[in-house]
Amino acid sequence: MADTVSLTLDGAIATVTLEHAGKFNAMSRGMWLQLHAVFVDLQLRPGVRCVLVCGKDGHFCAGGDIAQYPDFRFDAAALRHFHEVEVWGALQAMLDCDVPIVAQIEGNCMGAGVEIASCCDLRLASASARFGAPIARLGFPMAPREAALVAQAVGSTTARAMLLAAEVLDADHMLRCGFLTRTLADKDVADAAWAMSQRIAALAPQAARLNKQTLRTLVVPNSAFAPAGQAQAAIKDIANTVPPLVGGDPYAYADSAEHREGIAAFLEKRLPRF
Amino acid sequence: MADTVSLTLDGAIATVTLEHAGKFNAMSRGMWLQLHAVFVDLQLRPGVRCVLVCGKDGHFCAGGDIAQYPDFRFDAAALRHFHEVEVWGALQAMLDCDVPIVAQIEGNCMGAGVEIASCCDLRLASASARFGAPIARLGFPMAPREAALVAQAVGSTTARAMLLAAEVLDADHMLRCGFLTRTLADKDVADAAWAMSQRIAALAPQAARLNKQTLRTLVVPNSAFAPAGQAQAAIKDIANTVPPLVGGDPYAYADSAEHREGIAAFLEKRLPRF
Amino acid sequence: MADTVSLTLDGAIATVTLEHAGKFNAMSRGMWLQLHAVFVDLQLRPGVRCVLVCGKDGHFCAGGDIAQYPDFRFDAAALRHFHEVEVWGALQAMLDCDVPIVAQIEGNCMGAGVEIASCCDLRLASASARFGAPIARLGFPMAPREAALVAQAVGSTTARAMLLAAEVLDADHMLRCGFLTRTLADKDVADAAWAMSQRIAALAPQAARLNKQTLRTLVVPNSAFAPAGQAQAAIKDIANTVPPLVGGDPYAYADSAEHREGIAAFLEKRLPRF
Repeated sequence: MADTVSLTLDGAIATVTLEHAGKFNAMSRGMWLQLHAVFVDLQLRPGVRCVLVCGKDGHFCAGGDIAQYPDFRFDAAALRHFHEVEVWGALQAMLDCDVPIVAQIEGNCMGAGVEIASCCDLRLASASARFGAPIARLGFPMAPREAALVAQAVGSTTARAMLLAAEVLDADHMLRCGFLTRTLADKDVADAAWAMSQRIAALAPQAARLNKQTLRTLVVPNSAFAPAGQAQAAIKDIANTVPPLVGGDPYAYADSAEHREGIAAFLEKRLPRF
Repeated sequence: MADTVSLTLDGAIATVTLEHAGKFNAMSRGMWLQLHAVFVDLQLRPGVRCVLVCGKDGHFCAGGDIAQYPDFRFDAAALRHFHEVEVWGALQAMLDCDVPIVAQIEGNCMGAGVEIASCCDLRLASASARFGAPIARLGFPMAPREAALVAQAVGSTTARAMLLAAEVLDADHMLRCGFLTRTLADKDVADAAWAMSQRIAALAPQAARLNKQTLRTLVVPNSAFAPAGQAQAAIKDIANTVPPLVGGDPYAYADSAEHREGIAAFLEKRLPRF
Repeated sequence: MADTVSLTLDGAIATVTLEHAGKFNAMSRGMWLQLHAVFVDLQLRPGVRCVLVCGKDGHFCAGGDIAQYPDFRFDAAALRHFHEVEVWGALQAMLDCDVPIVAQIEGNCMGAGVEIASCCDLRLASASARFGAPIARLGFPMAPREAALVAQAVGSTTARAMLLAAEVLDADHMLRCGFLTRTLADKDVADAAWAMSQRIAALAPQAARLNKQTLRTLVVPNSAFAPAGQAQAAIKDIANTVPPLVGGDPYAYADSAEHREGIAAFLEKRLPRF
């Protein structure tokens, strides 16, 4: 298949590969469901001690598959289902993973790519990798809990540069802002990510699981997203708690002219007129 | 007038200029009220897509207007009104702004200047800009929610260096700690801030507003300042919730010898004796 | 004594010295109790305006005294008492300190060393200092509130590298991630830490106490660890609130084969087999 998320096992290391030929591994709706399924599958494999997430052919993930967007984004209920069930379902399964996750990031890491990387524990990137979420060019905001996840991982200043100014940032910036664990020469990143995975797989697995359970309670960046004593529940219920905070349905923009114009302009390969 | 906060419009970009001749744009009480009024005014201008905040004549803002302090700081009720109504009223109006805000930071950015910049989304600074809040030399602490705002923006380590050691930090430090979006040669910062404002104004305005509404819920740095599910309300009610946390009225120091000595020493141009 | 935490006074500066000859100042159980006692003692000395924490003979603290671990770590109740009463009692006394604390960090700063440094306000380190918490090699996780403290101080990305990959990091990394206030040439760090302590001692002492009281409410990294309006209480009650979040008793691993193997391998100077 052209668009897949695949799982391969090698001893105690599971490799999850994002693949969408010709689209720099942009996430189609089917890939989100497969990503979810892969991490549910991993819960049933106690022998796995480390997960390595990477993209095929020199890129991590260029974002969403925009060609699919006209099919569902302009209906608020369908848009909510996409973000809260399909996308967040996969990201939540990654956040629920009790095994350390290493991200091997090359080339484009945009939008969905930043979100997927934000669910990983160690992020190794090639020096030439590029990061951003320039969806303000496409006429729509980041969904609330995806924005909370990304802002927690990249920091408020970088999140604002990505979302409000559509900035695309290099690996040095992402190292400095605390998102990346390490940067490497392009030719070395795959070997380094594999070596890191082997290193982790040799450490105490029960301790790793307990550390991840503790660190998970620190993921949620603020109390609006985590009612006291309910951090785990809060992540799952965030779709219900965010709307009143932002003054209404966060997907009410679905049918707006701005949203339609942004996506139409992209697909027609022209500049949008907002 | 010598001390003003002015608003000028150029297409979709609103420029807010801090001006206090001879005092590096230090904020007088009147300027805090004008800053509040400007951001209330901006709420009524739907055509504005980006706000640019800058200071006059090569400085951003050197802090408060210390010459006014003997008139009100030694009375606890007046001091509370100053911080909770005048200062926080203006900062809250900035935080409530649904349009992206760019800060153009040159020269001195101290105390009130850091607080105002902390309410902006993108912070561009000249290489020679200097940052700090050396009020420990003046004998008083930062008001609780101003400290929460600044600590969230500069990080705990830098906030402690500023407040507990009265350190003055350069632009490289402030870039590294995540406060600044970018640093520029002194001669380039004004052009870069204007270009950034134009870039933002060309992006989707509804998406920007929705992103700001979501990001606003992440501003509050911890739950002491944000009761579960009430982030927005918490920012406004913080004056009521902070006192019991710190064991009493945070403005009870108003009439203390230390406070009087710090301000007197500054105005008499001598070293304080604490 | 070979293993002590001592207090010396010089004017308004109190110096706390960690000392354990031949073990790079690793914390024995007795040293944790002494560290607690020293900070309780300091509460009764109103003349102290700054505390300087350092280690003897070119190292800060290499971690815990692993030779003692077989005596108590394999019993869940004893393990809980160690972490929640002995270790956290000392760390909480440091967090409760209303006077600014400067850490002078040289050589090894591992495990308990990172935790103690995380309770300090300003962290000055020598260029050759090394940082980490490679307890995954010893077969056990970091206790929940110690992990919360460290993650807040070093950031989520560095905390995960330390805990999940057992990485040992240099001073440049720890400056970049926001943990260190400043790095210095090895020969200069003691003088710089003393000069910083003198600088702080000359500033307004009441303002410092009020700032520390406010900043303390920002220490808790998320609401799972700080029920709304109860930040102070939450730090003390965290032992009670964390277990249900991580699905059970966080010390249930005490008697596990992995825990025994990690500590046995270390004491037998061989690689562990997990």
